[in-house]
Amino acid sequence: MPSLDTARIDIERFWSTIERSAEIGPGRPGGLSRLALSDADKDIRDTFVGWCREAGLTVRVDGIGNIFARRAGTDDSLPPVVMGSHLDTQINGGRFDGIAGVLGGLEVCRTLDALGHRTRRPIEIVNWTNEEGARFSPPMVGSGCFVGAYTLDFAQGRTDEEGRTIGQELERIGYRGEMEAAPHAFDAYIEFHIEQGYYLDRDGMQVGVVTGGFPSTGMLVEFKGETAHTGPWPMERRRNALLAGARLLVETDEIGWAYAAGGGKATAARLAAWPNKPGILSDWAQAVCDVRHPDPETSEVMAERVRRAVGESAARAGCTAEILDIWKWGGSIFAQELIDSVRQTSLALGYRTQDILSQAGHDAYFVARHAPTTMIFAPCKGGITHNNAELCTKGDLEPGLNVLLHTVMARADR
Amino acid sequence: MPSLDTARIDIERFWSTIERSAEIGPGRPGGLSRLALSDADKDIRDTFVGWCREAGLTVRVDGIGNIFARRAGTDDSLPPVVMGSHLDTQINGGRFDGIAGVLGGLEVCRTLDALGHRTRRPIEIVNWTNEEGARFSPPMVGSGCFVGAYTLDFAQGRTDEEGRTIGQELERIGYRGEMEAAPHAFDAYIEFHIEQGYYLDRDGMQVGVVTGGFPSTGMLVEFKGETAHTGPWPMERRRNALLAGARLLVETDEIGWAYAAGGGKATAARLAAWPNKPGILSDWAQAVCDVRHPDPETSEVMAERVRRAVGESAARAGCTAEILDIWKWGGSIFAQELIDSVRQTSLALGYRTQDILSQAGHDAYFVARHAPTTMIFAPCKGGITHNNAELCTKGDLEPGLNVLLHTVMARADR
Repeated sequence: MPSLDTARIDIERFWSTIERSAEIGPGRPGGLSRLALSDADKDIRDTFVGWCREAGLTVRVDGIGNIFARRAGTDDSLPPVVMGSHLDTQINGGRFDGIAGVLGGLEVCRTLDALGHRTRRPIEIVNWTNEEGARFSPPMVGSGCFVGAYTLDFAQGRTDEEGRTIGQELERIGYRGEMEAAPHAFDAYIEFHIEQGYYLDRDGMQVGVVTGGFPSTGMLVEFKGETAHTGPWPMERRRNALLAGARLLVETDEIGWAYAAGGGKATAARLAAWPNKPGILSDWAQAVCDVRHPDPETSEVMAERVRRAVGESAARAGCTAEILDIWKWGGSIFAQELIDSVRQTSLALGYRTQDILSQAGHDAYFVARHAPTTMIFAPCKGGITHNNAELCTKGDLEPGLNVLLHTVMARADR
Repeated sequence: MPSLDTARIDIERFWSTIERSAEIGPGRPGGLSRLALSDADKDIRDTFVGWCREAGLTVRVDGIGNIFARRAGTDDSLPPVVMGSHLDTQINGGRFDGIAGVLGGLEVCRTLDALGHRTRRPIEIVNWTNEEGARFSPPMVGSGCFVGAYTLDFAQGRTDEEGRTIGQELERIGYRGEMEAAPHAFDAYIEFHIEQGYYLDRDGMQVGVVTGGFPSTGMLVEFKGETAHTGPWPMERRRNALLAGARLLVETDEIGWAYAAGGGKATAARLAAWPNKPGILSDWAQAVCDVRHPDPETSEVMAERVRRAVGESAARAGCTAEILDIWKWGGSIFAQELIDSVRQTSLALGYRTQDILSQAGHDAYFVARHAPTTMIFAPCKGGITHNNAELCTKGDLEPGLNVLLHTVMARADR
């Protein structure tokens, strides 16, 4: 039996698994368009479950479609050490975002099998449902439901643009599971993910030790106005909801620029209007925007400025506005003991390592409410993601996967 | 036989016809949602054709679905005097916009029948296809095709948001006619229409003598950017096409305000983007905007400012822009002899009459390229239109219809 200390994941085996996944739900060249609960999502879920069963894992599915694959421990009564992420993608997504975390968990289990090593605590891999939010809003609905941030009824009732619900689509693809969508105990949750930023790649770093997330605020805003003819209707009587939404998006962008030097970002993400046609003013619009900043207080100031911009944008367009939803994420949410463990493991393995904040949202943010949690980042070329040009090499992913292996092994054996 | 000079249209008969039309394709309370070539449009077309045949008119349909209903003249070899407008509506439309012009033409023919009067020249009523542009772009496609501004292939190939073409939908509802979609000679074209502005109503005027249209420019603009994650992607690398489109809409609105004191208007009418989702920057957007001003030179300056705003909006969002289409309408396009005839007829009938410019686009603008053309406006309450609250009383419409009757009768008898 090889020594546990010198154990390494098999990057070729992992890579062939990634490549098989990349055949399921192809999008633009090189990328994936594997929307949550689509036929392609069913296909990758079936494939993943097959791989897990081949690896001797016990598969369970909960009421929101989260898949848990369990490798028994020598003391199977203890809570599991959990790895995972998501197999769904954006509509113009890449082949690594999320996927590397789920299939990385599988690779860890396969490596332990090859080592002939059974850990003291059980190990689980999880695939969370609808992380991306590209088909159903909100994103991270599977992990949010798991930790109780959303009720199962609410989560199952979310609809896509054609009006189909998550519950119906889970039923259709056979992933509305029996297991209660409520948290079973985790000893720890460790999510491996590509950085989705360019710092590690730019700085030649191999492993990102994720110490927390950018404090962030998102808003869903509704504007109401009045339809009228675009020709004769005087400027001062217009109540064009589309214009109110456009004003909010522009103001949000300005707020982003005002804080860009300190790492702040603000995004004009979505604008829908009705009727949204030439010849008629729109009486309804809905906008989604968000702000992020590494400093919590500055992030809060940015959010407050967006909130004010909501009212101002509406007023300047003669409309009313309502903030339908505000969601906050990020901050110092991860467990220090796990952060330290990832850093020490990475240094012990001789990797170039950097502390880093996550700028994107992740399922780990929700799971952190439930159990000690952290993340491990791998570099991706130029930080390009949510784009078919998203690219990682074997060399980009191998170090982080080895850190995942040893961090999980140490945790599960203690 | 009653005297021709004292002849008047029958407002009760006209009103019951309007009320029957208002049952077909109901929208929000009191309004219509009768999109071009929908089932409801087929229904009103069938109903209108039935009324025309009852009135002894000969009905022909051309290749783009324009319906021509002809009342023979005593010298039937002469080109007809033509009345008409459109029976389609906006998605939140009223029961008078366009409809009053088509059914007003029918009322004129019915009145001539009741008078037992056959004019020297033939008379035609026309219903133009897809005036509103609410389902298919561009608007006024039927009249544009008729005068050769669009080829039949182009016009039949226009698609709605579900990808169905005008040609397919004409075939489906049985209105792809045999008649060549090319102009037969008109002696004159006179379009009766509600004002769609508030001047006549505000000033207590009964008839608007339309001397021309606001010189106007519309643009269809496409922006291209790059998808990326809304979280980590730095502000200075973002190429968010949705933001570029939003910036253009806001700038267009600012241009409208800058010229509002002189009657100028500018409209942010439509913005579509892809993927247009939380979590991902959009790499494509399409915007529609327009400017209008009573003074031709000022209108041109406004259009030039929008053109510049296209480039600036794209540059500030890191995107490229292309103006896919520019369309211009309005100006001094109507025939002076017909304008004078409408004014004199209105004064002779004792109506309070005002010269007025049209601010909206109309089929008459295209027909003016082909034949001597003018319009007659009736007041509508508060100028509200493209809205289910659009409202005219019998008293609002009766004077203009009598002016239509006598103007057409005089023209057709000369």
